[in-house]
Amino acid sequence: MKMQFKEISGSVVAPRGFRASGVFCDIKKLGTGKGSNKGLKRDLALIVSETPATVAGMFTTNQVCAAPVKVCVERVKRGTAQVVVVNSGNANACTGRPGLADAREMVSFTERALNLPPGSALVGSTGRIGVTMPMDNIRAGIIEAATLLGASAEHAGHAVEAIMTSDTRPKQLAVEFKLGGKTVRLGGICKGAGMIQPGMSPTGARPATLPALHATMLGFITTDVAVDARVLQAALNGAVAQSFNRITVDGDMSTNDTVLVLANGLAGNKRFGIRNSEFGIFQAALNHVCLELAKKIVRDGEGVHRVVTVRVSGARTVPDADAAARAVANSALVKTSWHGGDPNWGRIIDAIGYSPATVVEEKVDIGYSATGSKKILWSLQRGQPTKAMFKQLCAAVAPKEFELHINLNLGKANAVMYAADLTEEYVDFNKGDVKDASSLGG
Amino acid sequence: MKMQFKEISGSVVAPRGFRASGVFCDIKKLGTGKGSNKGLKRDLALIVSETPATVAGMFTTNQVCAAPVKVCVERVKRGTAQVVVVNSGNANACTGRPGLADAREMVSFTERALNLPPGSALVGSTGRIGVTMPMDNIRAGIIEAATLLGASAEHAGHAVEAIMTSDTRPKQLAVEFKLGGKTVRLGGICKGAGMIQPGMSPTGARPATLPALHATMLGFITTDVAVDARVLQAALNGAVAQSFNRITVDGDMSTNDTVLVLANGLAGNKRFGIRNSEFGIFQAALNHVCLELAKKIVRDGEGVHRVVTVRVSGARTVPDADAAARAVANSALVKTSWHGGDPNWGRIIDAIGYSPATVVEEKVDIGYSATGSKKILWSLQRGQPTKAMFKQLCAAVAPKEFELHINLNLGKANAVMYAADLTEEYVDFNKGDVKDASSLGG
Repeated sequence: MKMQFKEISGSVVAPRGFRASGVFCDIKKLGTGKGSNKGLKRDLALIVSETPATVAGMFTTNQVCAAPVKVCVERVKRGTAQVVVVNSGNANACTGRPGLADAREMVSFTERALNLPPGSALVGSTGRIGVTMPMDNIRAGIIEAATLLGASAEHAGHAVEAIMTSDTRPKQLAVEFKLGGKTVRLGGICKGAGMIQPGMSPTGARPATLPALHATMLGFITTDVAVDARVLQAALNGAVAQSFNRITVDGDMSTNDTVLVLANGLAGNKRFGIRNSEFGIFQAALNHVCLELAKKIVRDGEGVHRVVTVRVSGARTVPDADAAARAVANSALVKTSWHGGDPNWGRIIDAIGYSPATVVEEKVDIGYSATGSKKILWSLQRGQPTKAMFKQLCAAVAPKEFELHINLNLGKANAVMYAADLTEEYVDFNKGDVKDASSLGG
Repeated sequence: MKMQFKEISGSVVAPRGFRASGVFCDIKKLGTGKGSNKGLKRDLALIVSETPATVAGMFTTNQVCAAPVKVCVERVKRGTAQVVVVNSGNANACTGRPGLADAREMVSFTERALNLPPGSALVGSTGRIGVTMPMDNIRAGIIEAATLLGASAEHAGHAVEAIMTSDTRPKQLAVEFKLGGKTVRLGGICKGAGMIQPGMSPTGARPATLPALHATMLGFITTDVAVDARVLQAALNGAVAQSFNRITVDGDMSTNDTVLVLANGLAGNKRFGIRNSEFGIFQAALNHVCLELAKKIVRDGEGVHRVVTVRVSGARTVPDADAAARAVANSALVKTSWHGGDPNWGRIIDAIGYSPATVVEEKVDIGYSATGSKKILWSLQRGQPTKAMFKQLCAAVAPKEFELHINLNLGKANAVMYAADLTEEYVDFNKGDVKDASSLGG
């Protein structure tokens, strides 16, 4: 279902009844003071609904998962929540039992600060791995953030800033659409940059069909739609499968990947089931917001110069299509050729050939199009180079964004990956600064 | 079995009855003339036994495999051969039926040039993918190479040079040892550099147990040991499984990976079966030569500054150990941290956590040692940071080569990978020169 959605400002506070804030509480312990914003990047955010909301979540399937993920997986099962507390600068991952106690304190402290009943808060963290949370700073941050909540685009902007790590740009979006005769709104913020190839599931357990994947990405979505938790989770599963779980920057799946949706029902629409037409409309809107946010993560990935949509078609099975798309999207040689503006089909067919997908060399087509265009310039057809001029092919891969089309011509299954090039800047950024332990990323 | 082998010079011509040559025949069509060496890097080699030899081979499991691989797979099954013709500059991959005809002509032309019966020749190619072989140059090269065969270390050196692509150094080795009362010799040459994570099998078919892997690496081994083809293949399977199939530079498996062994029996030892003690000695020698050659490939990989031996122990199963080792060895974030001299255990535990291996965070140990040393400096034990000083850990990962130890503490299975860092030079080299199509690597 292809629909148009009206974009509005305010991201997570665009839906009725939501407020947000973001403060600096020195989570990285830069030593510039606690609990106050001194012009440094904010590092703690609150997103609050004025009424209890239904909730759904998707979590990293990494077996080494962070304490906040463990806490959220438990709490999302209950189906309701009212506030999300998120920090950057520390992932609270590989921090053992003390880390889990810290994550639990973050939610309970937030609930008390906002006078909400136990079980109302969810938590997300991103930043260094293996470092104990600076709980004094966190508590001071939560208290300050609770006093600064508001529903303006500026408030949402503070929250977006607070969740950024190596992101160079804030990533946010909100849309307004009609649902069951009511005007409803859906907004979201996210962060990404490195360690980006999410593979999330509703419980953090890895389904057999989910490939072994690899980012810290955090996404927080709010809506005033009235929707039951189970229906909301079904919509989120579908939306994440086609968006956040289809992006890769560097092929590394984080310990902290989390997407949460809070739906407070203040739009007053009639609740719907997954067989109602309203579900299709809601799913399409959620898909749109998740996909646009996911693409923003790839575009702003560490050192990324080019974004390539890898479209595999004609695979025997969906896992085959997915495996071929991921092999290409994560091949160091393919990614460096994209960086170089080199239409190197040899590396592409090499990558699909070593993927677990069934591939017959003599059947493979490889081509390029402008983003969204149906006009494909084929460089390889049925395993043989076409007569396309090398200059034409170079022109096709020169734009900042383009689409790569791979048809295996063996079946009807498709898959898409939103991928990035591999640049010297990525290497330089991630080789880290070994003067201290601050380079432990998560 | 740990044995010492006496290293001798001459690599592939060290064993009795072998001769080699290497010439320049302008396979890349640089336009500097054909069939003569004008001081440019040689690009065509012959390795010849004076008597028919038994033969064994291992070939890429990439489903997109080059024409010379297809020809060798067929011919190695017969169990005998007498000459190998190898070229660099053109991989003869993705060249369709004309490419297969060219590969067949390379072997038949070589047989005629050397007055050998049909079926005596094997072929290997490495270089550009998707470009038709310049057969006039190839024929002229074979004729010249046939006149220049010799058994000196210089001749072997010419052959090594001829198979190099982005290699910066020749890679060769020969050993002498006692077998059944006779002095026998085993020598080899190889090339690597990029597109290096071989996953080879005897027939090029992918066994279920072999992970989806990813180099063009070529290895040619000669010996004067008398050994039946089936016994030789068994020894090669074992040796490659622990050497060439355990290296990775960039995680990309080539269309052309090939290892061939020719055994001409001129040492006059009594033939042995796989249950005889001689087999153990021969296997150990072949293991040694293959492993030393494989390590040379990693050390000379494109842009490689550091070589890391990743040792996973305590896995539940061997596939688990292998999967964890490969996830770490191929993680962009782990590899960039090695480049930076950063002992970042967070990225390591993240990678094993997203690997298909069963991992329990609270059980994982991560540590470092000097190459070959049993003294391990643990950075993480049972999922928790140790008291090792950050400076000590930095010192442990500062050398050009070191060992990374990961104990999953869940079982008894082990695996090792010989891995490389990821540097700006790798990216710069592989982003290619888009002024022409010469960057198609294979």
